[in-house]
Amino acid sequence: MTSPATTSPTEFKPADAIAVLTRTPAVLNAWLRGLPEVWVRSNEGKDTWNASDILGHLIVGEQSDWMPRLRIILEHGQARPFDAFDRFAQAKQSQDSSLDELLDDFSRLRSGNLSALQALNLQPDDLTRCGKHPALGVVTLSELLATWAVHDFTHVHQLSRAMAHQYRDAVGPWSAYLGVLDCNGHSAP
Amino acid sequence: MTSPATTSPTEFKPADAIAVLTRTPAVLNAWLRGLPEVWVRSNEGKDTWNASDILGHLIVGEQSDWMPRLRIILEHGQARPFDAFDRFAQAKQSQDSSLDELLDDFSRLRSGNLSALQALNLQPDDLTRCGKHPALGVVTLSELLATWAVHDFTHVHQLSRAMAHQYRDAVGPWSAYLGVLDCNGHSAP
Repeated sequence: MTSPATTSPTEFKPADAIAVLTRTPAVLNAWLRGLPEVWVRSNEGKDTWNASDILGHLIVGEQSDWMPRLRIILEHGQARPFDAFDRFAQAKQSQDSSLDELLDDFSRLRSGNLSALQALNLQPDDLTRCGKHPALGVVTLSELLATWAVHDFTHVHQLSRAMAHQYRDAVGPWSAYLGVLDCNGHSAP
Repeated sequence: MTSPATTSPTEFKPADAIAVLTRTPAVLNAWLRGLPEVWVRSNEGKDTWNASDILGHLIVGEQSDWMPRLRIILEHGQARPFDAFDRFAQAKQSQDSSLDELLDDFSRLRSGNLSALQALNLQPDDLTRCGKHPALGVVTLSELLATWAVHDFTHVHQLSRAMAHQYRDAVGPWSAYLGVLDCNGHSAP
């Protein structure tokens, strides 16, 4: 149907970001629970992530990235930079968990964080409060919330690509029509 | 955790493809039902697709692509080429449907097609039977089944990118870390 262009920047509303953040655990649960091993244990090659790695990474984000950074903004502003986020921490703490355990952990942690976020009862003025990212410099609270949501999209995007990769040969000549097989791994770790 | 490489081609088993095909309607339902308009009605700019367009396209595939082509292979082999697939047919038939109606239609049609597929009770020898694609030439039944599954992945991949696009500005400097924002639209229509 080729919809009309909607290229104007989207006004940021916390409720829109929260709507995405609320749904991601259910999306991953519907997709991954009970799925054959070929889909969830296979990656895209050396030093890439499979479904378990991605879930482990999302779990670490719930524990040590998003809400801790939001609280640093509220409590310290730019005076205290965020702690650096270890993008490989999941290797240490979740490698022995089953996929079902990872799905359960992510769902529980996300739900708790969204409850904590709602309890803060952020006001419009809070969205422009600033914090200091250790590499990116000054960022706002609204940018942090928007990034939390787009980080979910990035890893759903990565997961669709990692699973599609398993059938790179199986699709035969149709590979020419399947865009996900052309994605160049920009959202790999 | 950076899992060991698993780069060997995956042996194709119909049950693996069916496991993906079975889950996609629930994935899209968990993601899109009740989501604010900004996510589901916005696209990536002129001549790109939003969530409704993608669902409409998946619906047309259930109606006129995957199972009809599979039956042509079984009944006619290469003697009768597949009908061409109209990638823009959804513009004509689903533009007046609500997103919830599209989710319901896709779920119902997919479920019916998978029941019909199971009823065919395909045997290993059937997987190597050949058909003729109007542009790609000779293809096998197993390639058709694998492509049906990877086509789902392609459109989940596209959907994550289309939704992330809405926050391209809202994430501020974090855009540098969010791979989905770098995807170059290879899976656009």
